[in-house]
Amino acid sequence: MSSTTSAEKQTIAFIGLGIMGAAMAANLLKAGFPLHVSTRSPEKAALLVAAGAVLHDTAGAAAAEADVVITIVGLPSDVEDVYFSQGGIIERARPGALLIDMTTSSPSLATRIAEAAAQRGLDALDAPVSGGDIGAREGRLSIMVGGDVEAFERAMPVFAAMGTNIAHQGPAGAGQHTKMCNQIVIASTMLGVAESVAYARAAGLDAAKVLGSIGTGAAGGFLLNALGPRMVDADYAPGFMIEHFAKDMSIAIAEAEAYGLDLVGLKASIQQYGRRLDAGDAREGTQAVIKSYDAPGQ
Amino acid sequence: MSSTTSAEKQTIAFIGLGIMGAAMAANLLKAGFPLHVSTRSPEKAALLVAAGAVLHDTAGAAAAEADVVITIVGLPSDVEDVYFSQGGIIERARPGALLIDMTTSSPSLATRIAEAAAQRGLDALDAPVSGGDIGAREGRLSIMVGGDVEAFERAMPVFAAMGTNIAHQGPAGAGQHTKMCNQIVIASTMLGVAESVAYARAAGLDAAKVLGSIGTGAAGGFLLNALGPRMVDADYAPGFMIEHFAKDMSIAIAEAEAYGLDLVGLKASIQQYGRRLDAGDAREGTQAVIKSYDAPGQ
Repeated sequence: MSSTTSAEKQTIAFIGLGIMGAAMAANLLKAGFPLHVSTRSPEKAALLVAAGAVLHDTAGAAAAEADVVITIVGLPSDVEDVYFSQGGIIERARPGALLIDMTTSSPSLATRIAEAAAQRGLDALDAPVSGGDIGAREGRLSIMVGGDVEAFERAMPVFAAMGTNIAHQGPAGAGQHTKMCNQIVIASTMLGVAESVAYARAAGLDAAKVLGSIGTGAAGGFLLNALGPRMVDADYAPGFMIEHFAKDMSIAIAEAEAYGLDLVGLKASIQQYGRRLDAGDAREGTQAVIKSYDAPGQ
Repeated sequence: MSSTTSAEKQTIAFIGLGIMGAAMAANLLKAGFPLHVSTRSPEKAALLVAAGAVLHDTAGAAAAEADVVITIVGLPSDVEDVYFSQGGIIERARPGALLIDMTTSSPSLATRIAEAAAQRGLDALDAPVSGGDIGAREGRLSIMVGGDVEAFERAMPVFAAMGTNIAHQGPAGAGQHTKMCNQIVIASTMLGVAESVAYARAAGLDAAKVLGSIGTGAAGGFLLNALGPRMVDADYAPGFMIEHFAKDMSIAIAEAEAYGLDLVGLKASIQQYGRRLDAGDAREGTQAVIKSYDAPGQ
């Protein structure tokens, strides 16, 4: 009943306060973890600082204060920067600290981080997520984890504050590989939804009503039911931006080619999203792929 | 409170007692509709006959007894046969009867049936379904209907005994077009699921565990969650046979090309299912498309 019977909460450094990161950090703070944060846009830290988080100028400075360092930044090049630059996380993390990259990034970079961490006596996990901004806010993310089992178990109380479907998938890189499996399903499914809407329009049907008929059967799923109607309404506001999805798909195709896999659906999807990038739609939502079917013959 | 206050149930002829048809006919009988049946394999009628249905030798003979004629047979050529052959449904249906084809068939054939029916003073609807054998058994099908609104309303008590998501999608052919929209989503989604499983294996992951991680996020849906595990287990028992799905996709691609639509995801799917047909897998379930990724470079 005394304060000594409950384990002290690990101190966390949280690097990257985008839509996902800010919501995840807020849940850690709510769960009682002492929090140090760093972000390229310090205004994004205001709410967290008001709730008790300590803002630092650099990722390395935040990492130096923490038992557990969590990163969720933009591109693999950003991950590389916060971990490997001078004064970065690998250099400044405390002995014995646990490093967790939750960015969707390349499996090979995850392996490099784990190796560099091990050389300095640090643990590392790759732990990308799915579930979107709603899942992040509600603490219901799926978290796919690669790295040593012991490090995974050490991280569980932290993951439990952010997600509900938490699985250790294998050694370093396995979390990123699992996220690639997720993006591969989405890549082709988005084509299926877009092609269905394009066909409905061409056939003179009411596409919204068609989605209502097919959304309760075998074709049903999150992407059809949530993004299909946005395609119909030409609502391209980003839940998940094309530029990020295109980055993920390019990682997946490079890995697949290294395995000798010919993923024809993924390639078709990259082709249609490439047309959106060429058209300047990089910062629109992934549902804007419907525009690649707007003008037959183009 | 007397028997004259409740409307007499329409007498139904039900043609085609496959997995779907038999379950749908049983629900009509249970709902109190007098039922006449016809099937190419009379042994399939035994349970229905025991429950009160009348078995006929031909579709035309069953149709001659009914207010409403329902067909759900195999291929468009079978539909053509039961409607247009000598002694078939168009010839023998009673004046004023309502003809409902629930086979997944071509929109143009639906239009031809509607025109021939109108010339004989008959109503006609195209009303394919989705929801699979489970939805058929439980009376929870999605029914997508094309034809005149008055005929649709007349059919509603009949549809309500078989489905829960029942929608009028437009004039004759619109039901079939809507079903094509359904199959187009499934075509690409199946590739996404198969490619995800293939990638997971190539990356050395536990594919079943990967599906557990990604099935609760944006990638989740019936196909991933129900058919993904069967791919992992190499369980190719048919819920829906490749030969039927390939037929549907070939209808969809012909219609799409007539509209000038380039459905790259659908084409990629036809390519991968074509490899299964070439390999003799026509009567396996659609999840067997995973085999098209088994041997890189083939």
